[in-house]
Amino acid sequence: MESRVGPPEGPMVPAEAGRKIKIVVEYDGTAFAGWQRQPGMRTVQGCLEDAVREMTGETVLVRGAGRTDAGVHADGQVASFPLAARIPTGGLLRGLNSNLPPDIAIVDVADVDPAFDARFSARGKVYRYLVWNHLVRSARHARTAWHVRASLDMVAIREAAAGLVGEHDFRAFRAADCERRTTRRIIRRLDVERSGALVAFEVEATAFLKNMVRILVGTLVDIGRGRLGPDTIGHMLETGDREAGGVTAPAHGLTLVRIIY
Amino acid sequence: MESRVGPPEGPMVPAEAGRKIKIVVEYDGTAFAGWQRQPGMRTVQGCLEDAVREMTGETVLVRGAGRTDAGVHADGQVASFPLAARIPTGGLLRGLNSNLPPDIAIVDVADVDPAFDARFSARGKVYRYLVWNHLVRSARHARTAWHVRASLDMVAIREAAAGLVGEHDFRAFRAADCERRTTRRIIRRLDVERSGALVAFEVEATAFLKNMVRILVGTLVDIGRGRLGPDTIGHMLETGDREAGGVTAPAHGLTLVRIIY
Repeated sequence: MESRVGPPEGPMVPAEAGRKIKIVVEYDGTAFAGWQRQPGMRTVQGCLEDAVREMTGETVLVRGAGRTDAGVHADGQVASFPLAARIPTGGLLRGLNSNLPPDIAIVDVADVDPAFDARFSARGKVYRYLVWNHLVRSARHARTAWHVRASLDMVAIREAAAGLVGEHDFRAFRAADCERRTTRRIIRRLDVERSGALVAFEVEATAFLKNMVRILVGTLVDIGRGRLGPDTIGHMLETGDREAGGVTAPAHGLTLVRIIY
Repeated sequence: MESRVGPPEGPMVPAEAGRKIKIVVEYDGTAFAGWQRQPGMRTVQGCLEDAVREMTGETVLVRGAGRTDAGVHADGQVASFPLAARIPTGGLLRGLNSNLPPDIAIVDVADVDPAFDARFSARGKVYRYLVWNHLVRSARHARTAWHVRASLDMVAIREAAAGLVGEHDFRAFRAADCERRTTRRIIRRLDVERSGALVAFEVEATAFLKNMVRILVGTLVDIGRGRLGPDTIGHMLETGDREAGGVTAPAHGLTLVRIIY
């Protein structure tokens, strides 16, 4: 690919070993095959690594805090990568953004301790899931909210959601191919807000298992529309039985809001 | 095109002459060449007329209240068309929506007086214009907000906006090819709200000239970033001089919010 932004004026002095860059990244996940670089696919990681190479000539591994699935959006994904070039952070911000497509934007760039790793340094994550709960689908929320026609019992949803907060073994709330060995996690907060037809689930946890938010929201929605009983959550946490839960909510309703360090 | 939804069960009895249908339409304007049907182009009117024909076999003219430009969105566009088929409004709502792409949704269908005409019966319109006012562009607002980097003086913008409210000759606020003979209009309300980096202009008027909202917002933004002085609005209203105004704000920041009857 042809570089659209050249290096800044002046000689490029190699930095002392170990410069580490932290970026905060916003994206509309609709047109991406997810975060993780895959040959021949348009991915967020791939676009970021290409942008770094176009601007600096350096081939780096951009490590993301969360490897979001295809269709999942981010307001505040965080990633880190080593860099030799001594370009100031303001120049990196402008230069990388001008090498990125309209559906990705780097909103912050910082020099961090070389030991920082976007994924392993994370102390928590916040996700938001949007449901468009109306008889008629929405054209303007089609890319960002799951359309659920059936009327939702918000009291039942909030009561069931409260049962998820705290430290639990969430093995019933993960994809079949999830490879994590430990499945205990702490959900610090799970808020459910309704504004007209839009229902927003916002959940903060120490870490998440694969598809955890989508299974959790799908189960709460199935409780809200009466497909599952109010004791479902307790039963799932106790038995670890994924089959007792609800559908996996579709990816496009999910947004990675921020990473806590 | 093959019909995806057939007529409902039972015989199709022709209605008494003069059944008129009113629809409220939501769309994401990004992928449309505007409202108005044009040969070989993907337009909102074209998709709606196709959907009516696929469902009922009738070729109708769907008249919109506002002929929005390419890229302009709608939360509550209104359109009307004559219909012979006696399909109940609930069936029309479901059937038409299943014949429409994800970026258009009909949110309401009603039988109205045959004299009703979406365009000529309108007593007012409300538009919203969004500006993303931040040094860094936004990936998630890229389709719906105009990115303005320079810091905006909100006090200057609100003071200038107040000067537009009321009955005025708005000939300085229209596109060069606007063909309306009368250019007096009443702006009933022009609110400017800031929430973080998002600045929302909401304007209600009896009717609008071509590009009126976009020229008005472009001029207010140019006042806010100091390219134009605070007396610009008064001068434009007095002299009718379009050249004294600001840029025409880009189409993608604009949404037709609702039509008042």
